Formats: sequence, C-alpha cells, structure tokens
Amino acid sequence: MIYITRRERFNAAHRLFKPEYSDEQNLQVFGKCSNPNWHGHNYTLFVTVKGEINPDTGFLVNLKDLSALIERYIIEKLDHKNINLEVDFMAGKLASTENLAIGIWDELAEPISSIGAILHSIKIYETENNFVEYLGK
Amino acid sequence: MIYITRRERFNAAHRLFKPEYSDEQNLQVFGKCSNPNWHGHNYTLFVTVKGEINPDTGFLVNLKDLSALIERYIIEKLDHKNINLEVDFMAGKLASTENLAIGIWDELAEPISSIGAILHSIKIYETENNFVEYLGK
Amino acid sequence: MIYITRRERFNAAHRLFKPEYSDEQNLQVFGKCSNPNWHGHNYTLFVTVKGEINPDTGFLVNLKDLSALIERYIIEKLDHKNINLEVDFMAGKLASTENLAIGIWDELAEPISSIGAILHSIKIYETENNFVEYLGK
Amino acid sequence: MIYITRRERFNAAHRLFKPEYSDEQNLQVFGKCSNPNWHGHNYTLFVTVKGEINPDTGFLVNLKDLSALIERYIIEKLDHKNINLEVDFMAGKLASTENLAIGIWDELAEPISSIGAILHSIKIYETENNFVEYLGK
Amino acid sequence: MIYITRRERFNAAHRLFKPEYSDEQNLQVFGKCSNPNWHGHNYTLFVTVKGEINPDTGFLVNLKDLSALIERYIIEKLDHKNINLEVDFMAGKLASTENLAIGIWDELAEPISSIGAILHSIKIYETENNFVEYLGK
Amino acid sequence: MIYITRRERFNAAHRLFKPEYSDEQNLQVFGKCSNPNWHGHNYTLFVTVKGEINPDTGFLVNLKDLSALIERYIIEKLDHKNINLEVDFMAGKLASTENLAIGIWDELAEPISSIGAILHSIKIYETENNFVEYLGK
Repeated sequence: MIYITRRERFNAAHRLFKPEYSDEQNLQVFGKCSNPNWHGHNYTLFVTVKGEINPDTGFLVNLKDLSALIERYIIEKLDHKNINLEVDFMAGKLASTENLAIGIWDELAEPISSIGAILHSIKIYETENNFVEYLGK
Repeated sequence: MIYITRRERFNAAHRLFKPEYSDEQNLQVFGKCSNPNWHGHNYTLFVTVKGEINPDTGFLVNLKDLSALIERYIIEKLDHKNINLEVDFMAGKLASTENLAIGIWDELAEPISSIGAILHSIKIYETENNFVEYLGK
Repeated sequence: MIYITRRERFNAAHRLFKPEYSDEQNLQVFGKCSNPNWHGHNYTLFVTVKGEINPDTGFLVNLKDLSALIERYIIEKLDHKNINLEVDFMAGKLASTENLAIGIWDELAEPISSIGAILHSIKIYETENNFVEYLGK
Repeated sequence: MIYITRRERFNAAHRLFKPEYSDEQNLQVFGKCSNPNWHGHNYTLFVTVKGEINPDTGFLVNLKDLSALIERYIIEKLDHKNINLEVDFMAGKLASTENLAIGIWDELAEPISSIGAILHSIKIYETENNFVEYLGK
Repeated sequence: MIYITRRERFNAAHRLFKPEYSDEQNLQVFGKCSNPNWHGHNYTLFVTVKGEINPDTGFLVNLKDLSALIERYIIEKLDHKNINLEVDFMAGKLASTENLAIGIWDELAEPISSIGAILHSIKIYETENNFVEYLGK
Repeated sequence: MIYITRRERFNAAHRLFKPEYSDEQNLQVFGKCSNPNWHGHNYTLFVTVKGEINPDTGFLVNLKDLSALIERYIIEKLDHKNINLEVDFMAGKLASTENLAIGIWDELAEPISSIGAILHSIKIYETENNFVEYLGK
C-alpha cells in the first residue's frame, strides 16, 4: 500500500450565512465571513489516493489521469466560481471548508476507483493558517 | 538608506469587467475573471518603506506602527470585502491587481511619511504565480 | 469525523542542557543547542482537532474560538519568552521540541474539549528541516 | 509514542521507461518523463521516525544522528546522480517516485532501528504538486 | 510604470563541464555538478515585465498572453529536457544558471515587446538556496 | 552584469533594549522584544552579489566559495548564538534587524570582493512577515 498526493488550486468566492438569519445574526455567528457582498480565497486542494504499485509502470496511478479527473470533476466546477451560487454539489449547503471537503470527497471517490486507486484523503487549505482534512466515513 | 518590508494578507472578492461591455465581451477580454457571480483570492501584500535608522531605537520605523497603519488604511477596507462594490479607493476603477497596487500606494504614501519613513514599493501577490509591483510615479 | 488544523506561530529562546552536567558534557550531548547564552527559533505550531460538523454552522468548531484558546493557553505563555525560564508548563523539563509538543498537548486537550472538539495532533516545526508530532497517549 | 521528521533534499536525473518498449511506446505510457536524454528534479525527502522520548536528553533521537544516517545511506547515493544508472538500490527498477520511496524505506529501516527509533514514513516530493508517502508493509 | 511578474516552472537535466577538460578537471572546477551521467532540477522562473497600464483593461499586459508566450518560447524547449543536449538557445554554452538566465532573456525580449510590454528581469531559482537574476545589458 | 543570491539560515537569541532605560521604558519602546530573558528567531539571510560571468566556468562566482565565505564570516558567528552578547560585529549596537543587516554587509563586502564579485544586497527575514534589505551606502 502506497499513497500519492496531487495538489491542485482554485480561486472562488463564497459567503458563510444562513438564509433564515438576519444579517446581524449572521454577523454574530459567522463574523466577517458573512459579508453579503461575498469575499474569496485561493483554495489549495490536496487529493491523496492509495493502492498497490502497478509493476508495468512503477506507478500507483498515472498522475496525468488523476490530475485530469480532479480538473474535470472539481476544478472546472469551482475555479473562478461562486461556491454558494454556482457549484452543483454545494447547493443548499453552508459553504464552509468542512462541507466543501466532504462534497469534493463525494464527487471524487467513484471516479478515482475507476482508475484503479482508492481515495484516501481530501485536504483543503482556505488560508495559510487554516486547513481541513476528511478521510471519508 | 535601508529598506524594511511588512507582509500583510487579505481575502477579498472581485470581478474584472467593463459595465459597458456585454457578458460575452467581458468573457472575451477578461476570461473567467469576468464571472458575474464574482470569485476571490487570498491576496498577499508587501509594503516596503525606506529611510535612515533612528539611532535611539535601531529601527528605520517601529514595525508595530507600520503594521497598525496598513491595518487601518488598507486591511480594514479590503479584508473579507468585495473590491468592486465596497472599497472606496477602488470605486469606478477596474479591479485589476495593477490598479489595486496603485490604489494602495496612494492611500499609504502620506500616512507612512507621518511615521518618518518613505514608501518605496507596493507588491501584491494575487496567486502564487502572479504578482504586481508599483514603485510610485 | 472531520479534522481541522489551525497554524499559530511564536518566537522564543531556549537552551538544551542538563543542570547536573558541565558545559563540556552538555556540549557533547546537545551540541551548539547547549549554548549557555541561549539561542532561539521561530516556532510554527499546528493544532489539529477532530469531531462532527455542527449542522447549524457547517463548522467542526468556530476557528475564532480555537484560535483564541490557543492564543490564551499557549501563545501568550511562549511568544517572545525563554522556554527554560518563563513557561510554567515546561518548568523542570528539558526544553526539547518533543517535550514542548507534549506540554502543549497537556495544556490544550481539556480547553479544546470545552468547545466541542477533540484534540487530535500537536505538530511543531522548530526549523524548516525538523518537526515533531504528538498524537496523545 | 512521538514522531519526529527530518527534511533532506537531493537533486537527481531520471527517466521513466521500459527497456523492452520502443521510444514511441514509452512516450505513450510515460509521456515527456520518458525523454531518452533524461530530465531531473529537486527531490525533497521527509523521513519520519517514532518511539519513546529518552528521559536523559528529552529527544526521541538525536537529529544529528538521524541526519547523518540519511546523508550516508541516501543522500550520498542520490544527490547529483542519475537514478536509473547510478543508484544501487534502484538498479533494475522503474525510477518512479513510488519505487524510490520504497527503496529508501528498505535502505533506512534497519539503520534507524540501530539508533533506537522506528521508521514510520518516507515521503518524497517530486514537484510542489506531487508527493508520495510509504508507511512500510 | 508598473511591474508584473509571472512564475513558471520546468524540470530539466543538465551537467556543468567543459568538453576540453578531463573528468578529473571538471570535477575539480564544477564539483558534483559535473557528473557525466547528468543530474537535474525543478527550475522556477520569474519573468518580470514593465510598462503602462492599459486604461481599457486595467492590465499592464494580459497574463494569459504573457504566460502563453513564456510557454511557447521557453517552457516547451526546457521542460523535461536535457539543457546541454536539447535546447537550441543553450547550444555550445556552459549550462550554468547564469547563462540560462541570459539565454531566456534573449529569447523573450522581442516577443514580450510584441505584446506591448518591456522585459525587466529574468530570475531563476535552481534550488531553494540559489537564484540568479538578469536585468539585460 | 548579473546577480546571484545565496540563501543561508541561522538561529539566534536577541533582545531589543537600551541599557540606560528601565525595563518599563524598554517595554514601552520595544514591546515584548525587550524581554530581559531573551527570545529568538530562525533568521533567513539572502546575500546577493553582482559582476560579470567568467567565460571559463559560466559562473559569476562559484557558489561553493560564496557559501563557504558566508559560513566563515557570518553563520559561525551568529548560529546558535546570542546576538547581544556573543557577536563581535554587533557589540555595543542595538540588536535590530536593521543593524544586523548593516553589520553583515560590513563583514562581507571585502571578502566577497576577494572572490571576484561585488556585494549588492543583504536581505534578512526575521519572521515570515518582516524583512530588511540593505544595499550599502
């Protein structure tokens, strides 16, 4: 069993708020992250997969395939987008980094198994000081 | 003459577009940066000042003063804000990193001179691959 | 179960030595880290907590609360301090990064449980080339 | 049980290819990594060991010993070398990062046990976007 | 006048040597960089251009154009290549970072002027500890 | 004319204070940096030299020579030392990063000219947020 990680990046807008709260209530719970005019981040995503090495290639998985799959299922949907308004797998959810990590896991687990690896971890840096990791259920 | 640099960070939303253009025209010129629903960045700001060392302190300028001044004039206005909609010194301007650098220079030059230093450079990283530097007129 | 990590930093002086050793013996065991006049580091601390997402906020824990707690229990005690002489939870211990990680764990485990999360890991970078991680007993 | 990690670096040339394939076949499977004239990387290696703290030193292991051992068994063999042609423990293997991680594990596990620690993880960054981790069998 | 910088990366093999020297002489002058079997690096390239802001776009230059031009004139020629054997603009030159910086300057100065900017600086990191900068004649 | 930069690192203790001030006065002017029990930093030093390329080597200067010279004149004196008490070229000076940059310049300018280059810049990072640069008189 070996682990390989691919880093990808996307820049997106978001807002943390509950629609049933007033702006004042949202400000109290979510602080400046609740700004109704949005703010944004350079998100850094680390996708770690695991499995056995293919003796024909020396690879666990061809990184071009893994990168293409992350590009198709995740980056195209998130990069230069508004996470609250435009990302199908985040619809109706609070746009926290925690929920984003779980949403990305749910999008990627199956496609990754189709290229012969097992999804091990989704890690997202929202800023250089904060990151979230999800290892599945 | 010695130079000292303070790094500060802010997270903001923006959009690159001209209001007189259609969405199609904006897309052609500004690419995915023209997304009408905004996107955002973790901006990193480097403010470099220059001057003589104060023999009483060994400092060109007390970094607490410089940091407080950047916080007050720049970070409070930009952090977790929408650059197009909410930042007074960017009103009516294209929200490019180039214009942001000049806008920040114009806000900071005078306050920095009030603490005994000369503003030398404003450098802004929009992503790890792109940065802009402005040295004044 | 999801994991969230907060990075904090502190700058401190320390010395590695045993009081019952001579300076020569200390030099032999601890090398230049035993310098009787102290040396210091920019320590980087990563605190990882785990738990379930709160459906009302989308957060595992509000990072403002986590950061405030690390500030109060750890950073105020360590930043710009002498680890050997001034830090209550390191009194009588060798000021190694290993002991520092365990000391920080012991200070933080209970306060973190009071905000609804479980402490998972304390990681400390002493330099860019060396770091220690402690996951509890 | 505590974990300590030492970072070391080496710069090497390599090529991904199977000698029984034609250049066209190698290009199809390994892409530009199969260039017959070689290419290279600044590899970054993280060696993590685990064990109990020695109460006489406060150390899990003296980092000078760990670093010297990595230097002797790994860096001297890999730094400024051609991984395909010059590294004994990679002879006859595909020069992938996965195989390199396992090869380094096999070289280091025994020497590390001789200094009183247990090898926990070999992590290698090939670029800032790709890294492999191996935790043993 | 404003400055904008684009970072690009390439991985290449090289060797420092003079063909008229023996291997012993090359080793004496160039150290382990003279290894006849090559070694390699992850090179990081920073291209800085300067000019006036275009009032129609807020840009000094569209970064997509600048990036495409660096890709076409530099990265395609250097990435996953052998600098001594395969790079036309380095033919017959010592493959030092200094000569590489000047070679890249000479390739890029004219294309950059064709997109309305002036080349200001070529900076190349060979490792995290060494970089070269060239500002033209 | 080309520029080459070498990065080196040292870990040191220091204190900012004036002996003729009381501890209260020092606290008011220098903040927590005046702690009488010292604190410390991982300092990062960038030494930039300039000159012409030697056509026999392709080098401005052999980096092994430059690094050895920085090691001998600077790192040996500063690493794991107390800047206020143990560094000859800082004796009697306020241990600010500004004064340290000038002190290092004065130590290095002559030795660097002896290896055929001209010292261009001394840049010191005290933390990731603060750095000082000195270009000589």
